[in-house]
Amino acid sequence: MDINEKVSALRGEMEKAGLKAWIINGTDPHQSEYVCDRWHARRWISGFTGSAGTVIVTMDKALIWVDSRYFVQCAAQIAGTTFEMRKVDGPEASSPVDFLAKEFSHGEKVGISAETLMISAKNRYNAKGINIQATADILDNIWTDRPQMPQNPVTRMDDELCGLSPIQKIENIRALGKAAGEDYHLISSLDDIAWTLNLRGTDIDDTPVFLAHLLIGPDSVKLFTPKARFTDVTPDCYEVLPYDAIEDELATLKDVTVRLNPDRINMRLKNGLDKASGVKVSEGREYSTDLKAVKNEAELEGMRIAHILDGVAMVNFLAMVKRNEYDFTELSIAKALSDEREMEEDYLGPSFSTIAGFAEHGAVVHYSATEETDKVISGSGLLVLDSGGQYTCGTTDITRTLLFGEATQEQKEDYTLVLKGHLALAAQVFPKGTSGHQLDVLAHQFLWQKGMSYFHGTGHGVGFRLSVHEGPQRVSAAQGTGAPVALQPGMVISDEPGLYKEGKHGIRIENLVAVTEAMKTEFGQFYTFEVLTACPYERDLIVKDMLTQEEIDMVDDYHRWVREVLIDMVNEDAKQYLIEATQPL
Amino acid sequence: MDINEKVSALRGEMEKAGLKAWIINGTDPHQSEYVCDRWHARRWISGFTGSAGTVIVTMDKALIWVDSRYFVQCAAQIAGTTFEMRKVDGPEASSPVDFLAKEFSHGEKVGISAETLMISAKNRYNAKGINIQATADILDNIWTDRPQMPQNPVTRMDDELCGLSPIQKIENIRALGKAAGEDYHLISSLDDIAWTLNLRGTDIDDTPVFLAHLLIGPDSVKLFTPKARFTDVTPDCYEVLPYDAIEDELATLKDVTVRLNPDRINMRLKNGLDKASGVKVSEGREYSTDLKAVKNEAELEGMRIAHILDGVAMVNFLAMVKRNEYDFTELSIAKALSDEREMEEDYLGPSFSTIAGFAEHGAVVHYSATEETDKVISGSGLLVLDSGGQYTCGTTDITRTLLFGEATQEQKEDYTLVLKGHLALAAQVFPKGTSGHQLDVLAHQFLWQKGMSYFHGTGHGVGFRLSVHEGPQRVSAAQGTGAPVALQPGMVISDEPGLYKEGKHGIRIENLVAVTEAMKTEFGQFYTFEVLTACPYERDLIVKDMLTQEEIDMVDDYHRWVREVLIDMVNEDAKQYLIEATQPL
Repeated sequence: MDINEKVSALRGEMEKAGLKAWIINGTDPHQSEYVCDRWHARRWISGFTGSAGTVIVTMDKALIWVDSRYFVQCAAQIAGTTFEMRKVDGPEASSPVDFLAKEFSHGEKVGISAETLMISAKNRYNAKGINIQATADILDNIWTDRPQMPQNPVTRMDDELCGLSPIQKIENIRALGKAAGEDYHLISSLDDIAWTLNLRGTDIDDTPVFLAHLLIGPDSVKLFTPKARFTDVTPDCYEVLPYDAIEDELATLKDVTVRLNPDRINMRLKNGLDKASGVKVSEGREYSTDLKAVKNEAELEGMRIAHILDGVAMVNFLAMVKRNEYDFTELSIAKALSDEREMEEDYLGPSFSTIAGFAEHGAVVHYSATEETDKVISGSGLLVLDSGGQYTCGTTDITRTLLFGEATQEQKEDYTLVLKGHLALAAQVFPKGTSGHQLDVLAHQFLWQKGMSYFHGTGHGVGFRLSVHEGPQRVSAAQGTGAPVALQPGMVISDEPGLYKEGKHGIRIENLVAVTEAMKTEFGQFYTFEVLTACPYERDLIVKDMLTQEEIDMVDDYHRWVREVLIDMVNEDAKQYLIEATQPL
Repeated sequence: MDINEKVSALRGEMEKAGLKAWIINGTDPHQSEYVCDRWHARRWISGFTGSAGTVIVTMDKALIWVDSRYFVQCAAQIAGTTFEMRKVDGPEASSPVDFLAKEFSHGEKVGISAETLMISAKNRYNAKGINIQATADILDNIWTDRPQMPQNPVTRMDDELCGLSPIQKIENIRALGKAAGEDYHLISSLDDIAWTLNLRGTDIDDTPVFLAHLLIGPDSVKLFTPKARFTDVTPDCYEVLPYDAIEDELATLKDVTVRLNPDRINMRLKNGLDKASGVKVSEGREYSTDLKAVKNEAELEGMRIAHILDGVAMVNFLAMVKRNEYDFTELSIAKALSDEREMEEDYLGPSFSTIAGFAEHGAVVHYSATEETDKVISGSGLLVLDSGGQYTCGTTDITRTLLFGEATQEQKEDYTLVLKGHLALAAQVFPKGTSGHQLDVLAHQFLWQKGMSYFHGTGHGVGFRLSVHEGPQRVSAAQGTGAPVALQPGMVISDEPGLYKEGKHGIRIENLVAVTEAMKTEFGQFYTFEVLTACPYERDLIVKDMLTQEEIDMVDDYHRWVREVLIDMVNEDAKQYLIEATQPL
């Protein structure tokens, strides 16, 4: 079937079901940031391969809403099909919800797969007066070669490496729930489940999770996932039940309070709960999310080691690039970095798709090189290289901006302004209770002084051999929804200011840092950051005169530390590069 | 009647009314920060003279809750009476609402004067299951010499000085309401009313407002306040009705939507609205608050002039103090400053009670010298001097920390750290949409690096010949309730970091600054601050080595400007001081 045939077939199913519109939001039953093939429904129906967007098919329209990152890509990918693109930001912005509210405001039925509709999303549709029908997925009737639910084997991590056993983590979750009068915890967030049970999977690219739901009761722990995964692992403190058994299981609950996160629990599970008797729902973020965010000493030690291993690969790679400066394209340089990481036996794979953007491509924040766009690295320019690895003991995420050829004064000044913000955030001491939102200005301040800025977040949480993006903490100029989360010792965040000049160059400098205790005084408890990432900055892009003595000392101290921890581990060819790259400014 | 007799008499009234408890929160019918004598009910019943606290009298207890600023003062003032003190913060914290919820949880009637109970406060009592009765004030039956409602004359400000006429401001309010489907605006906030009508009053010390309610309809403007105020002023676009007529007036509304702020509208007015038919309430901050916060060009020009006049008084005063260093106590130095301001014909009076705290008194953030505590200024030490004036064309608020004798190295370093934060905030360029909460860290950053901090806000809004504290914008590390307010050009805020070392010394440095446009670039619109306050810093407390060259330039540039604008206006005796105080560092 081509795209138009798929849309026609979908309309046939809508007709049968009495639906005037069908929504495909492209998420999975767990509201995962990245999804596995079975839930690439948006891609299947529209041909659009981006990571975000909403499809609405009506009897006479096929529409797809995307954000500004994807205007060009989406337009190209849907060209020649019945799909029309709509924009969710910019001057021509519109929203799928508003479209539905306007077109179907008289009770017409609008359908969506119950598995992909979270409770809070349903409430938003309802609030706009849309008669939303969360049903079985009618795509199943027409998508004949739809991939099956994955049932890849799981891996059990050593409790020692994780710092706590699954049952200890579960007891911690239960204790928090008990204090709030909650009996059950319903968890669908995949990294929460993997973290709680010290299990890892391979269902989704780059994020070592597996599809499952978890129900923790006062005396029981039930994991809903294919038993076939347990080839090498013996379940310990939990019972394994079929993935689809969760709905019926929830329906059997009686006179209990269930804690759940309405942003992460889908309507199929909610339907199950609605069939139960006397069940009270207590809405809130999963306690596991907060527990997971604060890494324990074992997890932190693992993260430190992972970053040393990653630093070795980065330095070997950088030394090799300096030797063979003009042998690369964007794709081949990303491959060369991946090859270096592969040399390390504890390396499991990338933590996300590498971003390698040269010259003006570096100014496209979410640039992803393809065979068509792949740019040869030649002449003078900056390369933004954002990559990370999954290691047996942790997850890394690092961005370095590399200079090829000669830098312009503007490029050096821009790099130095970004670096100053990056250093200011990492160096700050702050009192207990401070949120990342409060600290964000430290990273932006020098750019703002010059009327420049960047519009992505300054920092995101990073998991322990888990998601490269995890909450609840973050560092951002945006207020976000809900109360800002205070930074606590053990939290790991990225420190990644940038600057993007359209058509010219991009710059981003990213280290991961862990919140750590600084001092306790008559004014209270203070925290600061420990830098985890070990890799030189690009010295040739630093304008020393723009740095204060404190900033110079900070760069020199960092470089000395990088040299010390890596010098005996990098390959012979890289030693000289490392020594030169880490000389005092 | 002594305190205990008053409590007994109150219990008699409670008995008659069938009430088990009576609450006195000490506010006025307008939730004013400062109240006039008629609403000093907390002081009358308890003898406690602080500016915040809650009294609850039951049949067997008389309790007063105060915050940590007032633990010592309150304990002393209620000593020997039947009152017992409770604390709302610190390790022994409790809350009046929780006390009532615990003691009177079976429907017992708890009374409060309807005029002093705001709608949102009533909701908070109700949410705790307290059977709150908002009634006529039973204190009226026993407080025989209770001061009358003030009816001091009002003053009409020139529209030219205000930038807009009352009817223009009213049209702006109506336009905002219309866009939100609101027909009426009910406003009780006194500075909102004064600002909207270009009127000023003298009912409350230091804040030039008058007691009134304002009801703006589609075709009518009704001001509820004693007509006796209009001795020299002719009402223009509004009708004047008796203060107490508001309740009946509200009851006559029919099938309209009324915009009101539940934090500022009391239950007597709400009762009036409840009697009306078909009235829908739209809750939200008064539009006048947002309009008032963004000063127009005329208001800004007035504020600039007021700050020059205030700077002249400050410099004359400082020069005189330097000549007669040891002739003062805390009270007499405050008086001397006031005398200098009185020399200026446009001076109307203080904008708040001067804080003058010498040596260890300077470390008490809300210190207010009394005859008993008044400290002689002698030896070496720092004086925190926080004061401000009302002028015909604006309001000022300035803090300088003055050195007497020789400074210790610690005092100089502390002063310099506070100064660095004060400068960093004032110098920052920031994009449209940035809140004061985001910028706060700039003022705290250098103290935090040393494990030090201050716990008051960094900045508050300031009115135009109005309240020295006005919202909605502020600069604070605290998140506060509601969405943070973006700083907009025309907003005036204070920039006042400090440091308080118990038993040693206090430091605070405060200028007022106005948000102003900086530049527009491909990255958007940027704003920064214009400094309004014109008065030298204390040069002898600055450690030049701790400043960057940019900070040195900033101090020197500021001092040069201060000298230029003031040198021809200060008295002969002050010229030499001004020249010396503003020399480059």
